[in-house]
Amino acid sequence: MSRKLHSEPSITSLSAICEHIQISNSSRHDKVPAVVKRLLNSWNTKDCFEHISPVSIPSHEKVIDIVQQARRILFPGYFTKTRLHAANLEYYIGKETTDLYEKVNEQITMAIRHDCRRNNLPCTNCEERSQEMTLAFIESLPEVTAILATDIRAALAGDPATDSPDEIIFSYPGLLAISIFRLAHELFRLKVPIIPRIMTEYAHSLTGIDIHPGATIGQGFFIDHGTGVVIGETTIIGNDVRLYQGVTLGALSLPRDAGVRMRHKKRHPTIEDNVIIYANTTILGGDTVIGAGSVIGGNIWLTESVDAGTRVLLKRPELIYSNSR
Amino acid sequence: MSRKLHSEPSITSLSAICEHIQISNSSRHDKVPAVVKRLLNSWNTKDCFEHISPVSIPSHEKVIDIVQQARRILFPGYFTKTRLHAANLEYYIGKETTDLYEKVNEQITMAIRHDCRRNNLPCTNCEERSQEMTLAFIESLPEVTAILATDIRAALAGDPATDSPDEIIFSYPGLLAISIFRLAHELFRLKVPIIPRIMTEYAHSLTGIDIHPGATIGQGFFIDHGTGVVIGETTIIGNDVRLYQGVTLGALSLPRDAGVRMRHKKRHPTIEDNVIIYANTTILGGDTVIGAGSVIGGNIWLTESVDAGTRVLLKRPELIYSNSR
Amino acid sequence: MSRKLHSEPSITSLSAICEHIQISNSSRHDKVPAVVKRLLNSWNTKDCFEHISPVSIPSHEKVIDIVQQARRILFPGYFTKTRLHAANLEYYIGKETTDLYEKVNEQITMAIRHDCRRNNLPCTNCEERSQEMTLAFIESLPEVTAILATDIRAALAGDPATDSPDEIIFSYPGLLAISIFRLAHELFRLKVPIIPRIMTEYAHSLTGIDIHPGATIGQGFFIDHGTGVVIGETTIIGNDVRLYQGVTLGALSLPRDAGVRMRHKKRHPTIEDNVIIYANTTILGGDTVIGAGSVIGGNIWLTESVDAGTRVLLKRPELIYSNSR
Repeated sequence: MSRKLHSEPSITSLSAICEHIQISNSSRHDKVPAVVKRLLNSWNTKDCFEHISPVSIPSHEKVIDIVQQARRILFPGYFTKTRLHAANLEYYIGKETTDLYEKVNEQITMAIRHDCRRNNLPCTNCEERSQEMTLAFIESLPEVTAILATDIRAALAGDPATDSPDEIIFSYPGLLAISIFRLAHELFRLKVPIIPRIMTEYAHSLTGIDIHPGATIGQGFFIDHGTGVVIGETTIIGNDVRLYQGVTLGALSLPRDAGVRMRHKKRHPTIEDNVIIYANTTILGGDTVIGAGSVIGGNIWLTESVDAGTRVLLKRPELIYSNSR
Repeated sequence: MSRKLHSEPSITSLSAICEHIQISNSSRHDKVPAVVKRLLNSWNTKDCFEHISPVSIPSHEKVIDIVQQARRILFPGYFTKTRLHAANLEYYIGKETTDLYEKVNEQITMAIRHDCRRNNLPCTNCEERSQEMTLAFIESLPEVTAILATDIRAALAGDPATDSPDEIIFSYPGLLAISIFRLAHELFRLKVPIIPRIMTEYAHSLTGIDIHPGATIGQGFFIDHGTGVVIGETTIIGNDVRLYQGVTLGALSLPRDAGVRMRHKKRHPTIEDNVIIYANTTILGGDTVIGAGSVIGGNIWLTESVDAGTRVLLKRPELIYSNSR
Repeated sequence: MSRKLHSEPSITSLSAICEHIQISNSSRHDKVPAVVKRLLNSWNTKDCFEHISPVSIPSHEKVIDIVQQARRILFPGYFTKTRLHAANLEYYIGKETTDLYEKVNEQITMAIRHDCRRNNLPCTNCEERSQEMTLAFIESLPEVTAILATDIRAALAGDPATDSPDEIIFSYPGLLAISIFRLAHELFRLKVPIIPRIMTEYAHSLTGIDIHPGATIGQGFFIDHGTGVVIGETTIIGNDVRLYQGVTLGALSLPRDAGVRMRHKKRHPTIEDNVIIYANTTILGGDTVIGAGSVIGGNIWLTESVDAGTRVLLKRPELIYSNSR
């Protein structure tokens, strides 16, 4: 030990040497407790958004588990290890659906309790409310599977690169995002806190498609490629609409304190039936209505309504050509 | 029970009361079977794309496992827990490659069988075909590793933010997407169904880069940042091409029934050798050719061919400046 | 075997016959060793970037594990299975932080050793340096948690779609990306090799938000939606800045050999305090400064500086309207 000290005479100050001994001698583990104290203090004094309370909060992991189990129910046979056939199907779906009921109920109970506590409200019938919400969610599954069938058919009709529903169910990010959105939207309508957004942000993470669970979206919806698509909370989309990657259906420019002033207002556009919107187009504003059957070209910035049956294109932008050599 | 009923006299209709009793008494589990019946009926009557059949289908999970194992073989030592050295390398690669053969063969067999069944074709030599395809795939790995080396060198040459091949192999989404594409493309060329697209959509999910497995891409390909890149099925890209985030190489506007009418036609552009395309530029159309050595600026919308050696820039767009206070 | 040979006389060349026998008779496993040999040869001769050496390299998986553990410490109670309360909090944070220290130290040691080896430098005090870096990183955690609290408040202030810090912590991709960036940036400042970029590319994969660990970002930073955001290595961002999806803060066009010529220069813009930049805007160049309090509209391409307090909008682009029927 002292040998090591002497062998490095170039270290100039004593404190540096001491520090160096400490480094040489032991792990710096012994400095960790001081950091822990500072962390604990920061939560006591600074409102650092810790969550230390007698009430559990929903688990990110379990919400994702719910999404995956629901997909196994909505698309039986596609995401299962068990091979399904006519004889075991009812047993399988019955078991999965009962399991799902339990999991959803558990997470919704936590979400409601936590929300009551956050708003300093009593939680007298949280469990009953959770059971009602859970049942309503489970009962919506047949409708969800039916509407997703229209979405799959829309993908088949709109994409020249495939003629296989299996390929769409297995691998299309658009269908994945819409599936998760449709589940999350049922919970959003039931006013379940937190969980719907965890679901759609899970879809966002997997697909780059960001659909707020509050959006209203008709049947036969197809998003091709999808990365960068943003669909805001108060958007209304009709039936048989097709979007491409990078399309934003968003709010007009928001003031600095937008979070407070604009809450609960219609801030996002309305897209009527049979509209096609090409890649990287942005449509903004709560009063903006794209009339039925319109076709909006790519790379367009629209903040005004468009009559039904209109085709909108960008005037050919001026490009400058020169020899690059 | 009745006590509870009487203690809540404000409930107005009997059915509401009854419902409430049920809520109070038990889980609503007992309503789940009715939902299951409705789900089963929906698949019987509505063509909801279930997969209930005596034939297994490829497993999403196992295809991802194949991709990860192939990467361990293509970049030995980077994604392994085992430390590799000259003495164990052959043993390690031998074992991984043999394992990979088995896994790929299993999934291809399922994919072919499933595809035959979907098209009502007999499946007389599915296993032999699968073995042939699997071997051809495994035999392509040395070429894939060689071409990926050119892609890594292209990243080193093109990105000022790194001088470390390790950083590129470990963390660059562009290289990840290209690696998976190059594997998927080999399977696509062998006409393996479903699996190539599951692979590239896995890459899309991880990186935001969406390359159809059918695209043709030369060596020394570099995508920087990458989120939002879309490269369509019939795109042809030469050697030493560099793309930035948000670049679309896509199809011209598609009619509503595009899925049927445009299938199997060249719909996406051709990019010749040594082209650079900057961020968020869109190039569309099967007849559009970007000549060798051209440089296409950012944010450009191009639907026409460009001669070799051309530099294309957007005319400076008119901006409106005002005081924001 | 010979029997089989004779039974298929229509196959024309002997080699084809033999090949076919092999196919028919057995798995093609026996062709795998030849592929393995070719793979091994390719690494010997072609510089295919294998990593075969006596030195271990950082593990992608373990770096991700570190990120997740650090998040559990920064947001106690949000991502844990254990329910936290006043009585067990110190114990919990103490244990997590000590664990984190060990894991970080292990990976940093590997990263330094590997880097020394790559640059043919001796590695005399790699373990000491690693301990110093690890401690400095752990000691930065209280500051990181404090600055993340300002980021959460900025999200609450800027987003009308939520009034819940829990929703933001649980599900906002912007906060996730910033959290991981702030951790990675501490390691980047300490000159830890490889690991910071693995961290931010993990965030990029999860969120579509690509922030280089070298960027400098003030407090109260909010990215809404986020997919497609790119923030380059030498970007400087002040306090209370808000960005939307698809914003690029990037470098001006790069020559073909940019990787070598531009390394270590300021290539990316400076964004002063209180700036808002709307969706899909691109700001480029190391000398470009966006003055404090400016508001930059969406879809804009800027390569020049803007005075403080300026509002910049795109002149309404000319659109062509026609009847789509």
